[in-house]
Amino acid sequence: MQVSNPAKARLSVLARPKARSDEREAPPQSAEATSRPPKGERTREIILRVAVNLASAEGLEGVTIGRLADELGMSKSGLFAHFGSKEDLQLATVDAARAIFIEHVVRPALARAEGMPRLWALCDDWLAHIENRVFLGGCFFTAASFEFDSRPGPVRERIVAVMKEWLCTLSRGVDGAKKAGHLKASVDPEEFAFEIYSLAMGAHWAFQLLGDKKALSKVRSTILGRMRALATKKCPPMRAAR
Amino acid sequence: MQVSNPAKARLSVLARPKARSDEREAPPQSAEATSRPPKGERTREIILRVAVNLASAEGLEGVTIGRLADELGMSKSGLFAHFGSKEDLQLATVDAARAIFIEHVVRPALARAEGMPRLWALCDDWLAHIENRVFLGGCFFTAASFEFDSRPGPVRERIVAVMKEWLCTLSRGVDGAKKAGHLKASVDPEEFAFEIYSLAMGAHWAFQLLGDKKALSKVRSTILGRMRALATKKCPPMRAAR
Repeated sequence: MQVSNPAKARLSVLARPKARSDEREAPPQSAEATSRPPKGERTREIILRVAVNLASAEGLEGVTIGRLADELGMSKSGLFAHFGSKEDLQLATVDAARAIFIEHVVRPALARAEGMPRLWALCDDWLAHIENRVFLGGCFFTAASFEFDSRPGPVRERIVAVMKEWLCTLSRGVDGAKKAGHLKASVDPEEFAFEIYSLAMGAHWAFQLLGDKKALSKVRSTILGRMRALATKKCPPMRAAR
Repeated sequence: MQVSNPAKARLSVLARPKARSDEREAPPQSAEATSRPPKGERTREIILRVAVNLASAEGLEGVTIGRLADELGMSKSGLFAHFGSKEDLQLATVDAARAIFIEHVVRPALARAEGMPRLWALCDDWLAHIENRVFLGGCFFTAASFEFDSRPGPVRERIVAVMKEWLCTLSRGVDGAKKAGHLKASVDPEEFAFEIYSLAMGAHWAFQLLGDKKALSKVRSTILGRMRALATKKCPPMRAAR
């Protein structure tokens, strides 16, 4: 089925102007004279940024060398120079999405004080990355999870590894809040991390599919409610900033 | 990327033997002499059963007339006689999945006493339909939700309608449990229905992607814990049957 897809038209917009602006800002100079990555690396970054947005909107299976060549106005052979196969391209796309996710969700939270402030920041930043359309089509990894859960192979394995890493980060956040004396000792870190992530995934689903614009703020209240119910008296006050 | 997909090989197995067995059980007879649907309708049912499983494992976008013709060993023109276009086929696939979902999840729960028994049955049967692989690749609708959330058009609209219907069924279940005096009056039906569905979706994700075999039993305990925390003294005892 050919569906009209507004996301599609926006894909190139997201990456191309940035590329053109880069060219204007930086006149050609030797790699030694600057700390900027060489042109080949920048081109690869731009390709992967488009690939990540394409995957988040249309699925990772739609990320092919032919489709990207059309999207970027590049030759297929030019793309083959960067990625030898569709699988290599998909694996590189997953890695690029992971780097973006860390930059927007994990790193800002890790800069917060350990304990409940850090745990809440992990949740809040996750929801914000949906709200702010860090990935054009919603959460890259939730979409990729459901797309690849029945497709064994290296791409699925890489997605699984990233998702386990994220659940582990959330569990460590819960554990840190327990160690800081902000959460009751009876809280099971893995179980509570899973509960938080499920609620966030549900809100993403309602926001993205049902167009429920209040889904993210509603789930912030639900998660805060669950955290407060399990918090100790020592826990600093928390509120939804957004 | 060509990935080896064990689900693929099993698709035909699921529908074809049933079709052959039907033929053996029922020698040809006139449509008037039996209450069985005419052959054309049965063929359509078989095609859609394969389409539903294909979609649950590989995505609804993979359900094309060409792909199904290969899968069923039918001619494309034979399939065109049943479905005029890819879009018609996808819409019929969504409707067929809805009918299967109602048969396995909604109808058994509606046969239970109103109140907490019915609400719990809705949750329990939803989890059981994942566990029992009612759809070959996990929950058809969760997968379709994330696949089509950025693809505007009639197929997305049909998926949204079915998902709203399901959330409404769950909300009515919560409301029924309140009216029966089993849940506290302060419980918000939409909010609690959303929380339950998010937890179930998270468990499905962990079961299907991470291969966490205990995810469904763990989430049964989590949902029961949430229900017990919001239950009144009048609420009959609940336990995870599975």
